[in-house]
Amino acid sequence: MIEEIGLKVKTASKEAAKLSTAEKNTFLQKLADSLVENTDRIISENAKDLAKAKGHGISEIMVDRLRLTAQRISDMATGLRQVAELPDPIGQVLQGFTNLDGLKIVQKRVPLGTVGMIFESRPNVTIDAFSLCFKTGNSVLLRGGSDAIYSNMVLVEIIKENLLSAKITDGVVELLSDTSHAEAEKMMQADKFLDVLIPRGSARLINRVKEKATVPVIETGVGNCTIFVDESADLDMATRIVINAKTQRPSVCNAAESLVVHAKIADEFLPKLQNEINKVHEVEFRADERSLKALSAGIPATDEDFGMEFLDYILSVKTVDNLDEAIEHINTYSSRHSESIVTHDYFNAQKFQDEIDAAAFYVNASTRFTDGFVFGLGAEIGISTQKLHARGPMGLEALTSTKYLIDGCGQIR
Amino acid sequence: MIEEIGLKVKTASKEAAKLSTAEKNTFLQKLADSLVENTDRIISENAKDLAKAKGHGISEIMVDRLRLTAQRISDMATGLRQVAELPDPIGQVLQGFTNLDGLKIVQKRVPLGTVGMIFESRPNVTIDAFSLCFKTGNSVLLRGGSDAIYSNMVLVEIIKENLLSAKITDGVVELLSDTSHAEAEKMMQADKFLDVLIPRGSARLINRVKEKATVPVIETGVGNCTIFVDESADLDMATRIVINAKTQRPSVCNAAESLVVHAKIADEFLPKLQNEINKVHEVEFRADERSLKALSAGIPATDEDFGMEFLDYILSVKTVDNLDEAIEHINTYSSRHSESIVTHDYFNAQKFQDEIDAAAFYVNASTRFTDGFVFGLGAEIGISTQKLHARGPMGLEALTSTKYLIDGCGQIR
Repeated sequence: MIEEIGLKVKTASKEAAKLSTAEKNTFLQKLADSLVENTDRIISENAKDLAKAKGHGISEIMVDRLRLTAQRISDMATGLRQVAELPDPIGQVLQGFTNLDGLKIVQKRVPLGTVGMIFESRPNVTIDAFSLCFKTGNSVLLRGGSDAIYSNMVLVEIIKENLLSAKITDGVVELLSDTSHAEAEKMMQADKFLDVLIPRGSARLINRVKEKATVPVIETGVGNCTIFVDESADLDMATRIVINAKTQRPSVCNAAESLVVHAKIADEFLPKLQNEINKVHEVEFRADERSLKALSAGIPATDEDFGMEFLDYILSVKTVDNLDEAIEHINTYSSRHSESIVTHDYFNAQKFQDEIDAAAFYVNASTRFTDGFVFGLGAEIGISTQKLHARGPMGLEALTSTKYLIDGCGQIR
Repeated sequence: MIEEIGLKVKTASKEAAKLSTAEKNTFLQKLADSLVENTDRIISENAKDLAKAKGHGISEIMVDRLRLTAQRISDMATGLRQVAELPDPIGQVLQGFTNLDGLKIVQKRVPLGTVGMIFESRPNVTIDAFSLCFKTGNSVLLRGGSDAIYSNMVLVEIIKENLLSAKITDGVVELLSDTSHAEAEKMMQADKFLDVLIPRGSARLINRVKEKATVPVIETGVGNCTIFVDESADLDMATRIVINAKTQRPSVCNAAESLVVHAKIADEFLPKLQNEINKVHEVEFRADERSLKALSAGIPATDEDFGMEFLDYILSVKTVDNLDEAIEHINTYSSRHSESIVTHDYFNAQKFQDEIDAAAFYVNASTRFTDGFVFGLGAEIGISTQKLHARGPMGLEALTSTKYLIDGCGQIR
């Protein structure tokens, strides 16, 4: 199965690379209209996934992530139109010059080829991932979770119908209908067909991909983000930032999971924070011994807690004696996604920015801002937590490679 | 062993990242002087490797690759001085802006961290790799071949002596003294310590690394480069280009290994080429049936021959009826390193550049130009044949990542 479908996607990637910007944009606009026109059809297929989920006794939060409504379908269409309006990175010349031998050397942006995406739950990723890969001249092989299979299938069907009527090979998008782990593993090892694999989902999924994949992987989205409240911090500001980073949307990767507090202000800050945050939403504090003394409620933190992405109203807390200890703690436990320091001290802010190893580093702001749209990319295929190829929010450029083109007139060496 | 040495390199990477440009450049200049001062010591250690190699009955070409002379040591020193003079990419701001919320967002170039290099034979790679990693604020773990172990050890010793007298941690460079395959495999799986692994050597080495590594790999240097001689080619120019690409230095990755000829000119071109190239050096032609008819000597090519990097005076030859067949052949067998078309036809040149999937694509020039120095990088750590992170000749930038730094004044979302 993966052999057949892989070959199809690989073959289609050559056609995808040749599509003009106008063809790509026109198609994405048409697809946006078509999604809205097919609202009822999508909702009725989505209902099958919802019924299955309820039958399995899945939590209401997870069911909600799965649900497609007229509004959400209209939002997907809006997303498609936005991608259509972004500048096309393909063909962009990054640099060029004429060398000593008279060779005209140009470095040009080209598609990666075929992209594999493995994702969980939310069916809108199907449309998102397709649109970004298509805009960058790549073909894409999608593997969504079994819980969203009916929704994913109908969305890919609609894309394919539109591709066929636009006379574009429908192999530019394929969905693995077999959602078994065995089939996913074959996909992770399909070097022959895939140029890159982007997993999007839980830490468990991403670790499984890292372990099994022979296709080059871009790790995304595991965010064990930490906020350090320094001794010179404005404690009101620190309270606002921690409350926002922890509670505004706890299920996302740029939410804060961990708090590190300077010992000199721990006794004042921790009770104040706990009091204020619980007015917004009750939060469980998992804290080290020193922090527990300052808190009115909390449970002892394990080493595991400090390394954990809770994605829930839980916060790990650690009290430190100085900046170096804070840096050491964060570099030990963080997932290198986003970290923040709240401070008034110029040198501490500088030292933190220099010594913390993370994709995004904030001074006096919430970690919640790490996002392709906030960072001006106009789109987001995921947030890379690795250092090769792309780091932090990935937009269209992360789905491209480059090629040197050299024009000569008989030069030899 | 790898645990201990890996931890040392990893720890040292934090110090390496903090070195100022002046400290790095001064050190590289001092090291250059020191290498020259230690010429006799290096040559006497190198003699042990040479004696071992001769004892094993290794070919004179291979022994020569291993040999260090006063001239070659002086060349290594010159290389170090050139790297010292290159601009430091670390700290460079790639982009920055103030967003709607007033956050000041800046994307900055940072070191990768720790680089692993696995290489064969030539001991000068030890100095090359160290200097490029050091200049980019990385630490490096080197694993050279057993045949060059005495040479590599003395070179690393000299680097370490200089590091200590410059009061820089000597963990920024380590050499695996155990050159067993088992130890190399452990290195390929040392994710905990290494941020990237760069193999440099034969196709066999690179394939082994790809297969075994869990550390992210940048594939380098396997060059099955092809030249296509189109029906409209200037046959004198085509002859010069093929002779240069095949014979000027057959042991390097940008030498041509394969020739594809348009059927309309095969009968005229092939005998002409064979006659001229044999005046420079005798070349074995491994050709398909149609090409064999035009050649005065040659042996039938197998499928394997078309995919082979000979690194020798051997050329595979294929005759095709049209451009599409040539493109198909090259995309099937090439290693995506460098390809060239010799043509007078504007549209064919364009089509080739667009549809051939390779790091470097030439029109009317020899493939021998693919090189970090020719391409203006000022240095070269290898030539990437993959599409992620870096493609084609890799200079200092390929050894870096980026980091977003965001300055706020209390922003929440």
